[in-house]
Amino acid sequence: MLESTTSRLLEEFRSGDRRACGRLVSVVENEGRGAAEVLSELYPLTGRAFRVGITGPPGVGKSTLVEKLARLCRDQDRSVGIVAVDPTSPFSGGAILGDRVRMPSLFTDPGVFIRSMASRGGLGGLAMRTREACDVLDAFGYDFIIIETVGVGQIELDIASTAHSTVVVLVPESGDAIQMMKAGLMEIGELFCVNKSDRQGADRLALAIESMLGLRSSQDGWKPPVVKTVGTSGEGVDALLAALERHRSYLVESDLMSARRKFRVRVEIKELVEEKLKQKIWSRPEVDARLAGLVDEVMSESSTPYRAAAALLEFIRADSREEV
Amino acid sequence: MLESTTSRLLEEFRSGDRRACGRLVSVVENEGRGAAEVLSELYPLTGRAFRVGITGPPGVGKSTLVEKLARLCRDQDRSVGIVAVDPTSPFSGGAILGDRVRMPSLFTDPGVFIRSMASRGGLGGLAMRTREACDVLDAFGYDFIIIETVGVGQIELDIASTAHSTVVVLVPESGDAIQMMKAGLMEIGELFCVNKSDRQGADRLALAIESMLGLRSSQDGWKPPVVKTVGTSGEGVDALLAALERHRSYLVESDLMSARRKFRVRVEIKELVEEKLKQKIWSRPEVDARLAGLVDEVMSESSTPYRAAAALLEFIRADSREEV
Repeated sequence: MLESTTSRLLEEFRSGDRRACGRLVSVVENEGRGAAEVLSELYPLTGRAFRVGITGPPGVGKSTLVEKLARLCRDQDRSVGIVAVDPTSPFSGGAILGDRVRMPSLFTDPGVFIRSMASRGGLGGLAMRTREACDVLDAFGYDFIIIETVGVGQIELDIASTAHSTVVVLVPESGDAIQMMKAGLMEIGELFCVNKSDRQGADRLALAIESMLGLRSSQDGWKPPVVKTVGTSGEGVDALLAALERHRSYLVESDLMSARRKFRVRVEIKELVEEKLKQKIWSRPEVDARLAGLVDEVMSESSTPYRAAAALLEFIRADSREEV
Repeated sequence: MLESTTSRLLEEFRSGDRRACGRLVSVVENEGRGAAEVLSELYPLTGRAFRVGITGPPGVGKSTLVEKLARLCRDQDRSVGIVAVDPTSPFSGGAILGDRVRMPSLFTDPGVFIRSMASRGGLGGLAMRTREACDVLDAFGYDFIIIETVGVGQIELDIASTAHSTVVVLVPESGDAIQMMKAGLMEIGELFCVNKSDRQGADRLALAIESMLGLRSSQDGWKPPVVKTVGTSGEGVDALLAALERHRSYLVESDLMSARRKFRVRVEIKELVEEKLKQKIWSRPEVDARLAGLVDEVMSESSTPYRAAAALLEFIRADSREEV
């Protein structure tokens, strides 16, 4: 059952009210009351936007590139949603660079939505919440959705990979080919972007990426293009957008778009089930009390975490039965 | 119940057989049969090693630094365990830089154990498996355990933070202070290391880190030191080791060592329980069949992932009751 405020928000959302869209993104982001219901209501409206992930090491100029890419889309009269995922900072208690600071040239444009998401110290569900925020933007009707991740670790790659197309951004200073491989960047990229390509070493990096891609086993016949850009001047951003469009066409024509969607739906259902089960278990006071006792046993060396976990599982099982 | 081969391995392990130690690390790493039992057996032997996490962006020279740090420990007659966590690569199907290639000067030293761990495409349990591998090395008697992470994302920070002391390694080219904050590196570091400090900008970076740390709220009275090193020549590595020892003494004297251990035990038990529950649920063929049906419903737009998850939860609950 939807509460009346949520119903009103949804109504405003459907009539194209941007503020309602922003508030629903917040509901999803904060896992607020009614989030699952809102998402369930909006779900049939999703599936129209093109979702692009932009990832790469810190300092390669992702934000500038995203800004230029968004501007170009706007020139083509397409609306743009941007979700930037930042790790939590105790300094600010949230995403460090606020939405207003991030991309000043876009912030006043009604055809652009920008939101910074924070991981709030926990990884749990960050990729899920990012995807859900994109679902809200997709349902609202944004044509082009950009997911920008700040780190370059596994969770950031996971987040980027919830997009249709993932762009890995590097700069001539990013390090050699082995470093890129070690960071897992070569496998995730469906497009590669050598940014700050007016600097020395850009051609060498582009060649190195291309030769590494030659080693990579062909992914369903798509050969990732390497595009050179200069984010600050906007040079090459049109070529990047064109390459993204080619990838989108390729996904549609090869039927990969629907295969990927099916895979994502499966993962999404499993994640939702796991999340709910965890919440259910750890919110029971009797389970928490038992856990505290078991921690003490391990600390006093009369048990081990493994025996404690087995005992807790048994306790949870017995407790669930009583509930029936 | 332990199988006879596992019992024999444990016996050899207890008698100080390094090969048995390596094989038990593999059992844990691959979540092989008997892994939980092995860990439960070994648990009482753990808690003696000093665990150090080394993290930072790709290309800052972490491996070289780890090698020099390990050499220095060896000169002091301490045994060293090294666990390097790499993301999976489809190129190699595992950790890219094999143990032999990583640190040639250490590989033949019987007082050093080196293992590269891969994430095998999934994040599930990577931090847990890393910690467990360290438990095996701790139980075997390695004095000094180094956990090196390759990426710089949230999961890598999580892994590094399972250590007693976390060192964040940066180089003058790592980018400005804001970039470091964005990557979440300023919060996690208990020690900071400016490597390649013979390069221009090293002093400026060290000062920038110190002034950023001035902004950070005091963490239990510990002020993270900033140490300058040159990994290739070994310069400053002794100062880094000394700073690590000071942090260790601080942890012991302030009783934080035991508070942290208690926190870790709690997290560990919860993770083990969640892992087991997930395995139990998704391994049931009837749950898998129901999931497949629900995915089809969502794909044909007669349901949403949220309704599907609710239906699956209900199915799992009913199915569990029948089982009773």
